Amino acid sequence: MQRYFLNNEISETFTLTSDADAFQHFGRVLRAKIGSQAEFVTPSQKVIYIAEVETLDRHEMVLRVIDEKDAGDIELPISIDLIVSPLKNDRSDWLVQKATELGANRIIFTKMTRTVANWDRQLPKKQQRLQKIAKAAAEQSHRLKIPEIVFMSWQDILKVPKDAGIVAWEESARHNEHAALVSVVNHHQHSRLAMLFGPEGGLTENEIQDLSHHDFLSAGLGPRILRAETAPLYALSAVSLLCELV
Amino acid sequence: MQRYFLNNEISETFTLTSDADAFQHFGRVLRAKIGSQAEFVTPSQKVIYIAEVETLDRHEMVLRVIDEKDAGDIELPISIDLIVSPLKNDRSDWLVQKATELGANRIIFTKMTRTVANWDRQLPKKQQRLQKIAKAAAEQSHRLKIPEIVFMSWQDILKVPKDAGIVAWEESARHNEHAALVSVVNHHQHSRLAMLFGPEGGLTENEIQDLSHHDFLSAGLGPRILRAETAPLYALSAVSLLCELV
Repeated sequence: MQRYFLNNEISETFTLTSDADAFQHFGRVLRAKIGSQAEFVTPSQKVIYIAEVETLDRHEMVLRVIDEKDAGDIELPISIDLIVSPLKNDRSDWLVQKATELGANRIIFTKMTRTVANWDRQLPKKQQRLQKIAKAAAEQSHRLKIPEIVFMSWQDILKVPKDAGIVAWEESARHNEHAALVSVVNHHQHSRLAMLFGPEGGLTENEIQDLSHHDFLSAGLGPRILRAETAPLYALSAVSLLCELV
Repeated sequence: MQRYFLNNEISETFTLTSDADAFQHFGRVLRAKIGSQAEFVTPSQKVIYIAEVETLDRHEMVLRVIDEKDAGDIELPISIDLIVSPLKNDRSDWLVQKATELGANRIIFTKMTRTVANWDRQLPKKQQRLQKIAKAAAEQSHRLKIPEIVFMSWQDILKVPKDAGIVAWEESARHNEHAALVSVVNHHQHSRLAMLFGPEGGLTENEIQDLSHHDFLSAGLGPRILRAETAPLYALSAVSLLCELV
């Protein structure tokens, strides 16, 4: 069943007006009729409401809650803040989509020394666009939470609140470092982890030093060289495996 | 250093002509000069040759091998054949790119009941295009092997040679199945695993029955619903974690 996020709490019947994303998708894309059902999550994220269309026209849709279900353990038990560089072409779009499906808590973009993509002139538009992608992906993957898309300076990401930090560093992989990721994840269940990934050209020595002074531990992600947008997906899958399947 | 796959074995000096992919990329995209170096892998996949440009013009480039290095353990210890449905838009392209980075051995496309993308009229062209993407991704991720891109019928994929088979099934996740993936991977190190993933609309009950009769075990990939192109990346990352990092 399709899931939608609402911006406010609801009572037993509630109305979606034509300016709402849920109206656009449920009403127009999926062509909901009287009796069609969907799932709705409100900001409190406590339960999932199953609601049925009672009346609809071109401007609004009235729905009645017919059931509620427990949200279960759908969110990753470790809260992961991904810290990444803006990437070229549509690679940031799909990183946001996939990282949302795989359970990221926040996705923080920061300009690094070797960042190529230049978003300076279009930051608010980019933020809006990526936030929209995150919302759609959270609905599609049946999450309770939409990852927040944030832009920060390098100085600010060094101070992001965290219980532990990891930086995926190519050189760690070359030196066959392979224990850090598993060890950090296993020692920080139910806590807050920041994971940082370099841009296409990699991190500089200075950046690695900065990060190591701020408690980011270098970690290898296996022997193959992963692209800037692939490494975060590997790390999120690894966290899920260690926390949810092992 | 950039890595290239060659179609034949080489002696101490060798020539790339302008029709070779490596000439196009190294010579034209990276603008190699006399003295520029790159890594080369031959079909025997035994060592990595480091070679330097001795002479070049618009039509050919002569290189001399100046060093060799051991290939190391760059390939996944379990050989993974991914079996997937053709996907809409460019999603198969990027599945092939990412699955190659993450270490897949072969990527087999097969038409399933709910497959939407229709490639019937363009199969040879699609195969060529996806094989090219796999080659570039294998070079970029410093692999020794280019995953083969194959098209097969449903009947043939049921009989694909394997030591164990896994089918990622949404319903398994719903029923909180979470042990199969880890158990199969841990019991089949250094063997051959086939992993099947449904199309956008999911697998049918008939397909699941077919698969279960042919020794494909249903496995959940965590509580969140992953898209058709994301699930294989989760599974490959999980195999890498279990075989290469734990």
